[in-house]
Amino acid sequence: MTDKFTSLFHPHSVAVVGASDSPLKISYCCVESLTRGGFAGRIYPVNPSISEVLGLAVYPSVEVIPGEVDMAVIVVPADVVSSVLEECARKGIGAVVIITAGFKELGTESGARLQNDLVAIADRAGIKVLGPNTLGLVSPHVGLNATFMPSLNNVSCGSVAIVCQSGGVCAFLLHSAINDNLGVSLAVSLGNRANVDFGDAIGYLDAHPQTRAIALHVEGVDNPLGLMEVAGNVARRKPIVAYKPKGSLLDQAAYSHTGSLAGSYQAYSAAFAQAGVVSVEDACELLDVAKAMAFQPPPRGNRVAILSLQAGPGIIASSTCQRYGLPLAHFSPRVRKRLTKLAQTPFFSRNPIDLAGGFGQSIDSHRKWQEILRLVLDDECVDAVVLSTVYHSLDVPFIEWIASLPRDKGLAKPLILCRDSPLGIGREEIAKLEENGIPVYPSVERAVRALAGLVRYGYLISRP
Amino acid sequence: MTDKFTSLFHPHSVAVVGASDSPLKISYCCVESLTRGGFAGRIYPVNPSISEVLGLAVYPSVEVIPGEVDMAVIVVPADVVSSVLEECARKGIGAVVIITAGFKELGTESGARLQNDLVAIADRAGIKVLGPNTLGLVSPHVGLNATFMPSLNNVSCGSVAIVCQSGGVCAFLLHSAINDNLGVSLAVSLGNRANVDFGDAIGYLDAHPQTRAIALHVEGVDNPLGLMEVAGNVARRKPIVAYKPKGSLLDQAAYSHTGSLAGSYQAYSAAFAQAGVVSVEDACELLDVAKAMAFQPPPRGNRVAILSLQAGPGIIASSTCQRYGLPLAHFSPRVRKRLTKLAQTPFFSRNPIDLAGGFGQSIDSHRKWQEILRLVLDDECVDAVVLSTVYHSLDVPFIEWIASLPRDKGLAKPLILCRDSPLGIGREEIAKLEENGIPVYPSVERAVRALAGLVRYGYLISRP
Repeated sequence: MTDKFTSLFHPHSVAVVGASDSPLKISYCCVESLTRGGFAGRIYPVNPSISEVLGLAVYPSVEVIPGEVDMAVIVVPADVVSSVLEECARKGIGAVVIITAGFKELGTESGARLQNDLVAIADRAGIKVLGPNTLGLVSPHVGLNATFMPSLNNVSCGSVAIVCQSGGVCAFLLHSAINDNLGVSLAVSLGNRANVDFGDAIGYLDAHPQTRAIALHVEGVDNPLGLMEVAGNVARRKPIVAYKPKGSLLDQAAYSHTGSLAGSYQAYSAAFAQAGVVSVEDACELLDVAKAMAFQPPPRGNRVAILSLQAGPGIIASSTCQRYGLPLAHFSPRVRKRLTKLAQTPFFSRNPIDLAGGFGQSIDSHRKWQEILRLVLDDECVDAVVLSTVYHSLDVPFIEWIASLPRDKGLAKPLILCRDSPLGIGREEIAKLEENGIPVYPSVERAVRALAGLVRYGYLISRP
Repeated sequence: MTDKFTSLFHPHSVAVVGASDSPLKISYCCVESLTRGGFAGRIYPVNPSISEVLGLAVYPSVEVIPGEVDMAVIVVPADVVSSVLEECARKGIGAVVIITAGFKELGTESGARLQNDLVAIADRAGIKVLGPNTLGLVSPHVGLNATFMPSLNNVSCGSVAIVCQSGGVCAFLLHSAINDNLGVSLAVSLGNRANVDFGDAIGYLDAHPQTRAIALHVEGVDNPLGLMEVAGNVARRKPIVAYKPKGSLLDQAAYSHTGSLAGSYQAYSAAFAQAGVVSVEDACELLDVAKAMAFQPPPRGNRVAILSLQAGPGIIASSTCQRYGLPLAHFSPRVRKRLTKLAQTPFFSRNPIDLAGGFGQSIDSHRKWQEILRLVLDDECVDAVVLSTVYHSLDVPFIEWIASLPRDKGLAKPLILCRDSPLGIGREEIAKLEENGIPVYPSVERAVRALAGLVRYGYLISRP
C-alpha cells in the first residue's frame, strides 16, 4: 500500500490523459503545471488527436507509453474516465489523480453511478484514486505540480503539509503560502475521495520526513471516526491543526460540493480536541498555526511576555492575548528590578515592554533591547515571548542579531515575531529569522493568534 | 483655524528642525522621508552644526530661512523643543509636527511639565501641534511624508483617511495599505495630542475632498464626548470606522504610551454606535471596512448572495456570513427557475452558487456566469453580492467583464470581490475592478467581514 501512495505523492513518471494543446483549456493547464514546475521525472501527455504539446511528444493511449508510469493525471470527460482507468490498470499504473468533475458532487443519480463505476474498477486493480473532482496535488520537494493551476509552481519547499477537502480552498491556501513565504512539504486536495481519504493522507504524512506540521481543511466526511482515529495516533508525533467552516446552513452546500454530509461543527470540534487536533476559525489562522507548530515546540505554559519596538502594536498584542485566553506574564522580581534600572523609571518594567519608548531608539539602544530580550527569554515566569516590530531600516541590526541567536540555548521557549515588509522590503531579515526557527507574521494579531494555537496544542497533548 | 490645519496637513513649505546628516539617526530619516516622497514644496533642514544633507542646504536656525515656512517637523531633544517652538512662533509658522518623545507618555513629573510648557507656548502663538511623540503625517495627494519612515513614501493616493493615536499602529496600517494596494487620502498619528486631537482631524477630513471614508485607531482620549460629537456630525456624510483594542489590562499600557486613560471598551463601542461609527475588532478589519465604505454605499438590507468560481471558498463565504450575522438571500422564484434551467439540475439554484461546478468552467461558460451575476444583482431579494474567485488565468476574461460593468446600472447594490494574486500575478484585473468602484479582498473571509461592516454602517445611519 505504501508503494501505491508513493506512486501518488512521489512519482518518478506521470502521464496526463486528455492533454490538450489549446491554452484556453484546463487540460492544457495540467501539462503546463507539470512541465514548468521543475519536475525531474518523465512526463507523458496522452491524447489520440494531437502529436505535441509544450515541446513534449503526445501518446495516443496510456498503453503505448514506452516506459513505466507511476501516476496518471486524468482530465477527460466524466463519461470516459472509467475506460481510461481500465487502460491505466492494464498499464500497471498504481495511482491516478482524477481532475474531471461531474460525479457524486452533482447530486444526480448518473453522477453517483459514474463515481461508483470508477471506484469499482480502481479497487479491483488496486489503484489509488485522488479525486475525482480534485485540484490534484503539489509536492514542492520533488517539483511536482499535478494540478491545473500553473500559478502553484511558485509554492516553495517547507515543512507544512496541507490536506484539503476542497480544491478551491487548497489553491487559495497555496496562493496565501506563496504570498506569505510559507514553505510547504506537500499539498493535497481530496475532492470526492473515491478511495483516498483524510486518513490515508495523514497516515502518509506521518512518515513523510519533510513534513513537520499538518493543516487540514475539512467540510465533512462519511467516516469521521476513522479520521479521528488516525489523527489521534499521529497528532502526538506531528502536530495537526484543522479548519472546518462553521454554520448550520452549510450541509447542503458541502454536499453539493464534494459529496459528503457536513456534520455539525460542534461535534467535529469536540472530536478534534479529543484526538489532540487544534481547531481554528478561518483559513488564515489555519496556516498561521501550522507554521508556528512546524517551527517551534509548544510552550510549557501560557504566560506570554510582549516586547514591542512601537508601543501601539504592543498594546494590540496584549489585547489579542486577552482575546485568545493567554495571560500576560508577571516578570520575576529580578527581571523587574533590572528593567527599572535600564529604563530609569518603573513605568517600563511591566508587561508589555515598550522597547523604543522605554529604552531609547538609537543604534546604541540595541544593546539594551538585546539584554531585555535575553532577560525575558530566561525568566522562569515567562512561557513564550512575542516581539512586535513594524519595519524600519534602523532596526535591521537588532533583527539580524535575533536571527543569529543560538537555537539551543536562547530559544528554549517559543519566540514569535511580528514584522511587516512593505513592498517586500526587509524580506531578507525575515528569511534569516525563519531559517533560525523563529516564525514571523505580518501582523501582531496573527502572531499572537498563532501562538495561541501552539499553546492549545501543548495543552491537548499534555493531557493523560 | 482652517488655515492652521491647512498649514499642517497641506503645507507648501516644510522645515525639519534637528535634521541630521547621519543615516543612522531618526532625524536623518525625517529628511529622507520628505525629500524622496515627491513633495513639490520647499524643504528647509535646520541644524547649526551641519551645512548639507541629501543635497539640501541646511539653515542654522528657523528664523534665518529666507522664504515662508508653513510647517515644521521638530526632531530635537525633548528639553530643547520649547525653545524651538518659540523660534517657530517668531517665524510665523502655523503648525508643527513634534516627533520627539519624552513628554507626558513617560509618566514622570518632568515629562508632564515639558509637555505643559510646549502647549502653553503653542496656544499663545496659535500654533497647531501634532504630537509630541508622534510618527507624523502622510499626505499622498501632495507627496508629503512628514514622518521618520522613508518606507511610507510608497503609500499610494486614494480615498481612505487614517487617524491613529499610536504612531506604530499608523505605520503598520500604512505598510498594510501598501501591501494591499489600498489608496490613502491622508494619514495622521496624533501621539500625545498637545492641541490637535481626534475631533480636529475628523473635522478637517469632513471637508477634505479626497477623503471618502475615515478609519480611526483609538486607545483612549481625555474628552470622549468631544470626539463622539464631532464623529456623530460627520459620520452621516462620511462613513467612519473605529478600532479600539479591547481588554481590561490595557489602561496602564495605553497611559504610558500616549498619556491618556484608555477607558472601557464597552463604553466606547456604545458611544461609537450612538454616533453612527462602526466598531471593528482588529487592525486588518479596520482598513477592510474603511475600503468597503470608501468604494460603495451601504446596502438597503443585509441579504447576501454568494457566487463563487470554486465551491469550497463559497462554503467558507456562507460560514463567514453566518458568523457576522448576514443572512443568505433566498432568490426570487424567477431567478431560481432560470438558474435551474441554466444548470440543468435544481441543485445549483440555491445560495451559495457554485459557478464552475454548476455551469461549467470552459471559456464558453463565461456567458452563463455573466448572466447569473446580472440575474442576482437584479434580484429584489438580494441586497449585496459577494463573488469569490481564486486566481486562475482562464478566468481573467470574466473578471475583466465585471470590471467593465456600468457603475450606474449594474452596480446599484454592493458587489464585493475576493480575488487573490499570488506573487502579484493578476494585479491588473484587480486594479481595473477597483477603478470601477468594486472593492477586492485577498480572502473571502475578509471580503465578507468588510461587507458586514458596510451593512452595520447602513443600519447605524438609517436609525431616526
